[in-house]
Amino acid sequence: MRFATISTRTGPACAVQLANGQFLPVAAAGVQHAALLDGSLQAVIEGGDAALAELAQLVARADDGDPSLAALAVSDPELLAPLPRPAKNVFCVGRNYAEHIAEGARAQNTTIAVTEVPVFFTKPCTAVIGPEAEIPIFPQVSTQIDYEVELAVIIGTPGRNIAKERAYDHVWGYTILNDITARDVQRRHGGQYFKGKGLDGSCPLGPVVVTRDELPEPQNIGLRCLVNGEVRQSSTTAKMIFDIPTLIASLSEGLTLEAGDIIATGTPSGVGYAMDPPRFLQDGDKVVCEIDGIGRLANTLRTV
Amino acid sequence: MRFATISTRTGPACAVQLANGQFLPVAAAGVQHAALLDGSLQAVIEGGDAALAELAQLVARADDGDPSLAALAVSDPELLAPLPRPAKNVFCVGRNYAEHIAEGARAQNTTIAVTEVPVFFTKPCTAVIGPEAEIPIFPQVSTQIDYEVELAVIIGTPGRNIAKERAYDHVWGYTILNDITARDVQRRHGGQYFKGKGLDGSCPLGPVVVTRDELPEPQNIGLRCLVNGEVRQSSTTAKMIFDIPTLIASLSEGLTLEAGDIIATGTPSGVGYAMDPPRFLQDGDKVVCEIDGIGRLANTLRTV
Repeated sequence: MRFATISTRTGPACAVQLANGQFLPVAAAGVQHAALLDGSLQAVIEGGDAALAELAQLVARADDGDPSLAALAVSDPELLAPLPRPAKNVFCVGRNYAEHIAEGARAQNTTIAVTEVPVFFTKPCTAVIGPEAEIPIFPQVSTQIDYEVELAVIIGTPGRNIAKERAYDHVWGYTILNDITARDVQRRHGGQYFKGKGLDGSCPLGPVVVTRDELPEPQNIGLRCLVNGEVRQSSTTAKMIFDIPTLIASLSEGLTLEAGDIIATGTPSGVGYAMDPPRFLQDGDKVVCEIDGIGRLANTLRTV
Repeated sequence: MRFATISTRTGPACAVQLANGQFLPVAAAGVQHAALLDGSLQAVIEGGDAALAELAQLVARADDGDPSLAALAVSDPELLAPLPRPAKNVFCVGRNYAEHIAEGARAQNTTIAVTEVPVFFTKPCTAVIGPEAEIPIFPQVSTQIDYEVELAVIIGTPGRNIAKERAYDHVWGYTILNDITARDVQRRHGGQYFKGKGLDGSCPLGPVVVTRDELPEPQNIGLRCLVNGEVRQSSTTAKMIFDIPTLIASLSEGLTLEAGDIIATGTPSGVGYAMDPPRFLQDGDKVVCEIDGIGRLANTLRTV
């Protein structure tokens, strides 16, 4: 199934996509499970298999043309971030594609070692924006705003010290994340990525979260980033240095992952700061992140 | 005022400390403000001056011996973390005391530059534990668990691009934070602090949050860390490289701070890994963090 969070008169509402492309709010008339009645994607995720099973029946009825459900489905809703306010910061992974490490080393005229274990950092909840929101540029803070398309994993079943072999059991779904980065800020703050990766609006997310079954081969899908129609990044998740099970196993060592946690899995090569000369995002630029099987996350930059 | 979150039969409850040392739940009979009725410290903070004003009257009545309030006050409650589940990761600051930078450089036999701006990272919400909880040791994850006493600032009024001169207007209060660090993990993950600072239970917090007026000179107070009664860290917040207004101004550049946000302000010298030979925390060790005017945060280590 494919989930979005849509804007409604009564506030944000989790909705599931029907075969005809319309979105059906999961708190539609007649649902029983508390996770569905809650109306948030976070609750649906926490609801686990039981919530999904009831929802699958609902979607089947809607796709069969049930008129009461058809009346509730929305054709062209305003899409918010699927998890508009995650319950904790977004987990992120640095240096997870060899060609991106190489381009970074070239751009900085240095060498960057491939670490033996993944490099983790976070982006704050306040950075998350939806697929129709603008990415703010704060000229007094940064003049080097850059894009990074990433596959994001959504955790379903909580766990600590998760074995690689069981990692996918803990995955609920996937979405697209644009790890917007202020390169100048990233460099200034003593080598810690957080501040340069943490500005407001620096975490576009969406447009949908697809459940794990929709993406049976997450380690073999294409991902691209286009700026004003020009392809800047184009790669495949097959090129990750640390695959999804390794990331989950490493991150969860002594650290409990929870339902709704978001893990961005790193970006391939082609970022703007590594171009010669570097090309940073400007007011009015349109950045599109595409991942096969999920969709297309498009955001425009706007100076504030 | 001094606030704790106490364990009650109906769950965690924010409570204010009376002159006699007892704790009065803020949702006590007769309160009007929704922030107080909610019963969480997060809500009290969001309630701002109006919530505090009503509470001050309540405390005055209780201190005057109002029997209905005396009946609600608790003598020796179980204390949880004052903010048991922050709404986002805890903001932290690295390298903010010169002597701590110097001891780190000596221990690693290298030089560490003082940065021109603060070094920020985060600890996940799942790391937060209260003043009576045990700090877990995961021997398969880390054998180098270390302590770091820190003054933590609690944000009240939200803001972005906060000027230094107005920074204290955004401070709601202060508490004690022990930035428990797995040194071996910290080193392994490519230089990013997050994973080594993010293990479950690695963020003891409390025992109380004191409001800003209780600590009129936050930049001139003593802080200490003792392990099994032996003083390991003993310094003053006067020695911070970046003072509280500078930290708030720098962190909020392009990044919105929200009510209830926690900012740990860095640790002075005396940490275990910089001792010769290094001395890490072991099962059964008792770590006590003290900050003058706030109190004493004591936690015991336990192998799990």
